[in-house]
Amino acid sequence: MSGTLNEKARGVFAICVTPFTDREAVDLDSTRSMVDFYIDKGCTGLTLLGIMGEAPKLTAEESRSFVKTAIEATMGRAPIVVGVSSSGLASLAELANDVMSLGAAGVMVAPPGHLRSDDQIFSYYESVAETLGSSIPFVLQDYPLVTGVQIPVQVITRIIEALPTCVMVKHEDWPGLNKISALRKREAENGLRRVSVLVGNGGLFLPDEMTRGADGAMTGFAYPEMMVDVVSAHARGDIARAHDIFDAYLPLARYEQQPGIGLAVRKHVLAQRGAITSATMRKPRQLLNALDIKDITFLIGRQTSYLERIG
Amino acid sequence: MSGTLNEKARGVFAICVTPFTDREAVDLDSTRSMVDFYIDKGCTGLTLLGIMGEAPKLTAEESRSFVKTAIEATMGRAPIVVGVSSSGLASLAELANDVMSLGAAGVMVAPPGHLRSDDQIFSYYESVAETLGSSIPFVLQDYPLVTGVQIPVQVITRIIEALPTCVMVKHEDWPGLNKISALRKREAENGLRRVSVLVGNGGLFLPDEMTRGADGAMTGFAYPEMMVDVVSAHARGDIARAHDIFDAYLPLARYEQQPGIGLAVRKHVLAQRGAITSATMRKPRQLLNALDIKDITFLIGRQTSYLERIG
Amino acid sequence: MSGTLNEKARGVFAICVTPFTDREAVDLDSTRSMVDFYIDKGCTGLTLLGIMGEAPKLTAEESRSFVKTAIEATMGRAPIVVGVSSSGLASLAELANDVMSLGAAGVMVAPPGHLRSDDQIFSYYESVAETLGSSIPFVLQDYPLVTGVQIPVQVITRIIEALPTCVMVKHEDWPGLNKISALRKREAENGLRRVSVLVGNGGLFLPDEMTRGADGAMTGFAYPEMMVDVVSAHARGDIARAHDIFDAYLPLARYEQQPGIGLAVRKHVLAQRGAITSATMRKPRQLLNALDIKDITFLIGRQTSYLERIG
Amino acid sequence: MSGTLNEKARGVFAICVTPFTDREAVDLDSTRSMVDFYIDKGCTGLTLLGIMGEAPKLTAEESRSFVKTAIEATMGRAPIVVGVSSSGLASLAELANDVMSLGAAGVMVAPPGHLRSDDQIFSYYESVAETLGSSIPFVLQDYPLVTGVQIPVQVITRIIEALPTCVMVKHEDWPGLNKISALRKREAENGLRRVSVLVGNGGLFLPDEMTRGADGAMTGFAYPEMMVDVVSAHARGDIARAHDIFDAYLPLARYEQQPGIGLAVRKHVLAQRGAITSATMRKPRQLLNALDIKDITFLIGRQTSYLERIG
Repeated sequence: MSGTLNEKARGVFAICVTPFTDREAVDLDSTRSMVDFYIDKGCTGLTLLGIMGEAPKLTAEESRSFVKTAIEATMGRAPIVVGVSSSGLASLAELANDVMSLGAAGVMVAPPGHLRSDDQIFSYYESVAETLGSSIPFVLQDYPLVTGVQIPVQVITRIIEALPTCVMVKHEDWPGLNKISALRKREAENGLRRVSVLVGNGGLFLPDEMTRGADGAMTGFAYPEMMVDVVSAHARGDIARAHDIFDAYLPLARYEQQPGIGLAVRKHVLAQRGAITSATMRKPRQLLNALDIKDITFLIGRQTSYLERIG
Repeated sequence: MSGTLNEKARGVFAICVTPFTDREAVDLDSTRSMVDFYIDKGCTGLTLLGIMGEAPKLTAEESRSFVKTAIEATMGRAPIVVGVSSSGLASLAELANDVMSLGAAGVMVAPPGHLRSDDQIFSYYESVAETLGSSIPFVLQDYPLVTGVQIPVQVITRIIEALPTCVMVKHEDWPGLNKISALRKREAENGLRRVSVLVGNGGLFLPDEMTRGADGAMTGFAYPEMMVDVVSAHARGDIARAHDIFDAYLPLARYEQQPGIGLAVRKHVLAQRGAITSATMRKPRQLLNALDIKDITFLIGRQTSYLERIG
Repeated sequence: MSGTLNEKARGVFAICVTPFTDREAVDLDSTRSMVDFYIDKGCTGLTLLGIMGEAPKLTAEESRSFVKTAIEATMGRAPIVVGVSSSGLASLAELANDVMSLGAAGVMVAPPGHLRSDDQIFSYYESVAETLGSSIPFVLQDYPLVTGVQIPVQVITRIIEALPTCVMVKHEDWPGLNKISALRKREAENGLRRVSVLVGNGGLFLPDEMTRGADGAMTGFAYPEMMVDVVSAHARGDIARAHDIFDAYLPLARYEQQPGIGLAVRKHVLAQRGAITSATMRKPRQLLNALDIKDITFLIGRQTSYLERIG
Repeated sequence: MSGTLNEKARGVFAICVTPFTDREAVDLDSTRSMVDFYIDKGCTGLTLLGIMGEAPKLTAEESRSFVKTAIEATMGRAPIVVGVSSSGLASLAELANDVMSLGAAGVMVAPPGHLRSDDQIFSYYESVAETLGSSIPFVLQDYPLVTGVQIPVQVITRIIEALPTCVMVKHEDWPGLNKISALRKREAENGLRRVSVLVGNGGLFLPDEMTRGADGAMTGFAYPEMMVDVVSAHARGDIARAHDIFDAYLPLARYEQQPGIGLAVRKHVLAQRGAITSATMRKPRQLLNALDIKDITFLIGRQTSYLERIG
C-alpha cells in the first residue's frame, strides 16, 4: 500500500487524462494501461479528476468507476490524489470519503471563484479541513488563471500553520517563481512545517521552479519522463542536465499547453505512445486537424533528434 | 398529469429553494409543503435545481430524491422544469433522462461560459437538442450576468427555427426589455414559432417585460403572489393595476435580489410564511444578522400597509 | 469657496453626466445649467469624470475644459470631487494636481482591476496617498461590480488608519449593507477617524444604507431631490418619511439603473427636466427607442401621482 | 519615407517598451537608441503605445513627445504603428489624427471589452473605420486573453471585405494556429484581399504560425533578432533552420512571457544589451530580485552556447 499523502511527497504526480473508447464510453482497459504507462515512466504518484480535463463530462457513476479502476491498477505502487473541488461542502465531503474508501491517498481542493479577501480564502480552507476531518490529507490547489482566486503567500502559510491536514501545495500561479521562494522563506523563518510543493502548468517552468524550492511536478504532459528526469537531475544537483532535458521537450510541451486544443494534443500523443487506445474526447471538444497532426509529428521528430544528441 | 412543456407555457414558474433541516439535511417534508405553497399562491409551474441556488451543494443522490419528492408532491397540478446544465453532454443527458422519467415536464440549459461567437452558441444548442432527442423539450436560459455568455436575438431565433424542442426562453438578460421586443418582432416577421418567454431577475422588471411581450416569470421571490397577480392583471389588460401590485412589493423584491445575501433573505421569509420549516442554508453560506432581519421585518410591514391601501 | 473635502462631507454629491450638443460636442452651456440644476435641487456636492459615464470618451483637453467650466459654475456653492483613476500613478498625479489647481475639493480613486490580496490593495492606496501628497484629500471608491476588486472592511480601516488624506469611502459594494455596519463598528471599536461614507448604485438602497451609518449618496439619478429628501428625512429621524419618498421614486430609479441603457435614460430625463439641452451621447452608445420613452413617460406619470398622494 | 501601412507589411514590427530614466522620467535619449537598436537588428517596423506595456502610465503630453521622438528617430527607415485603442471614438480619432500628422504609418485598435456578438464586433470596427476616414490604415488587434473579446474568423473576413482601411490583423488569439489557417482559407476561397497577419504572444509560436500563413510578428522580445531570423529563414523555405533558431531562444522567450514580471525581464535585458539606459519602470510595477536576475543570466548563458553550436 502506498499509504496516505504527506509532506514528504515529491517527484512527479501525473495528472491523468480520462480515456474514452472511439464510441465515447469510459475506457477502463486504457485506464489500466495508462496507470502502468505513468508508473513505468517513473511517476511517483497519479492525480485523477483534475479541474481542467474531461472529468466534469463524466456521470457520478462513471467517475467512481474510473477512480476505482485506476486505484486498483496501481496495486499500491503509487499514491493517488483525487480532485474533489465542488460548489458545496456536503458534496465535496461525500466525494472525498468515497475516494478515500476506494484507496486514494489524498484529495485536492481548488478555491471557489468568488473568494477574494485573505480572510475569505482562509475561512474556506478552514471549513474544508473541518469537513474532511483529521484523517484525510488535502492538497491546496493554487491556480489563479483558472479559478480567478489569488492566494497570497501569507494566506498559504496561515493555512499550513492552522490546518495540519494541508500537506501539499499544487503551485500553478503562472509561473510564480517568487511565490515559491517566498513560501519557502516564510516556512523557514516562522518554523512552519515544510509542505510538499508540486508545480503545474504542464511543467513549462519546471527546472526554474525546482531551483526555487519545488519538490516536483503535478501536471500532465504526454512525455512524463521529461518531468521525471528533470526532477531527478535537479535532485542530484545536475542543474545543467535538468535544463538540457527540459529544453529538448520544451517546444512540444509549449505546443501541448495551448488553451482549447492542448488536451486533444496530449491525448493524441498518449494514444500514439500506446498509453491509451483511443485519443477520443467527449463532446464538447476540439478536434485536431491534419495540420495540427503534422505540427505534432514534426515537433516529436525534432525532439527525438535533440534527445539523441544530448544522450 | 401535467404533460410535457410546450410553447404555450405562461404564468409563473417559481424557482424553488432547496429546503434543509436545522442540521443541514435535505428536508423532504418542507419540499412537499413548499410545492403546495407555490401552487396555492397561483404558480402555474415550478423549476428545480436552478444554477444560482443551493442545488450544487447537493450530492447526486440528494438531488434525485429532492426532484422525485417535488414532482410527486405536485400530483399533476403543475409542470416541473429541472435545470440540467452541465460541463459535459453525457452528464447533461443522463440527468435529463433521469428527471424526465421521474415526471419532469422539461429541462433547462444554460450555455457554458466559454462560448462567445454566434456560431459557437448555436452549435452548442444544436448538440444539446440532438443529445436530448426529440421527446425532451428544453428551456434556453439566457442569463449573461452569471454565465458570461451574451446570446444575440438572431441566435435565439436561429435556435427556435432549427430546433423544435426549444420551447421556451428564460429571459434574464438584465433587464433587456428591447431584447424581448426584438425577439417578438423577429418571430412575427419571419413567421417563426412563438416560443414562451418567461423572465427572471426576481421579477424586478416584470410589468415592463410583460408589456414587451413576455408570457410570465420564472424566478424566485418569497411572495410569488406578486408575480402571479402582476401577470394576471396584465393579461386582462389592467396595466395600472399590474404596476400598483408590483410597486407594493418592489422595495422587498429589491432587497431580496441582493447578491450574496439574497437567498438567505428569501429562505428567511419563506420560513416565516410557513412554506418551509427552516431557513437553514448549507455551507458555504451567508447568515442574516439582527440588522438584516430588522430591515426585512420593516419592509414587510410597509408592504402590508401598501397592499391594504390599494386593496 | 467650498474648501477641500474632509470627513464631515454628507448629503448628496451628484455624479454629473457629460452634456453634449446634438452634434456631439461638449456642451459647456449645459454644463453650467446642470451645475445650477443639481445645486438648486439641494445637492451638497458634485462629482465629475466618474468611471461609468462618458468621461472616457472625452479628449484630455475636453476633460479639462469640462472640469474647469463646472467648477467655475459652482461659484463656491458646492465642493467638486473629480475621478482621477488611471493606469499609472504619474498620470493620476498629473490629473489630480491639475483639477485641484482648478479648484476641485478632492479626487476619487478606484483600484486597478488586477489587485487581489489585502496587502496589494493597501499598498496601492499607500502609493496613491504618497503620490498625491498631504494636501489632496481622496475618496476611496469601493465598487467591486465594476472594478472586480473586493476591498475587505479590515483593509478599508487599515487605509483610514494609515492614510490621513483618505477622507471618504464611496460605498458601491452592491448593496453591502453589512459592510457599512462593519465599517462603522470597527471605526468605533478601534477609535479610528470616522470617515464620510457616501453610497452609490443609483441610490437603490439609500434609506437602508442610511440606517446602517451612511452619510449620504454619491451617485447619479435624474431626480436628485429624491436622494436629498431621503437623506434629510433620515437625518431628522423621520425614517418612515424617508422610505415614503424613496418608494415613490424607486420604480424609475430601478429603470434608470439598467446596465447598458441606463445612462441614456438618465440623460433623456435630465434633458426633459431642462437640466441639459440635449440627451445626445457620444458613440459608442445605446439609443432609446419609442418603447423605452413610453416606459419612462409612464413611470414618471405614476411617480408624480405617488408624490402628490404622499404630499 | 516609409509611407502608410498596407497589406504588404511583413517581417518584424517590434513592440517598443517605454524607456524611463532612473528617476522615472520619460527617457527620450533611450527612445532614440532603442529605435536604432530595433532597426539595426532587422526589424521592418515598430509599434508604440501597446495595450500591455507602460503606455497607460504616460500623461497625454508625455505620450505625444515619446511618439514624436520615436518617429523622428526612425528617419524614414521603418514604418511606425501606434496603438490608439480608447473608450470613445472621439478620443480615438483625436489620437489617431495626431500621430498620423507626426508621421505614423498606421494605427492599431483593440475591441472594447464589452463586445460579444458577431454583429457588435463588426459594427464597432465599422464605426472605427468611418471615424478614422479613408486615409488612416488600421490594424485589427485580436487579443482575446486581454480584451476578453473573441473575434470569429467570419467576422474578421467580414471586416476585411467591408472596410478597405483594415490592412493588418495582429493575431494574438493564443496561439490560434487554426485561426490563421482558417483566415487564409476564407480569404482565398472568397477572393478577398490578403491582409497582413503579424503574430504576438512574444513570438512563442512564431515558426508554427509562419507555417500557417502569418507574415511575421508584431510583439516584444528582448532579442528581436530571433524573430527576424525565424521569419527570414521561413521566408526562404528553410523551416528546420527557423526552428533551430527559435529553439535556441525559447527558454528565455518563455521566461520573458511571464505575466506580471515579464516586462521587467524585458527591460532588464534591453538595458543590459544597451538598447536603453535604464530598466526602470514606473509605479505600479514589479521589481526583479536577485534570484530573477540569476535566472535570466543563466538562461542567456545557455542561449549563447546553443547559438554557438548551431552557428
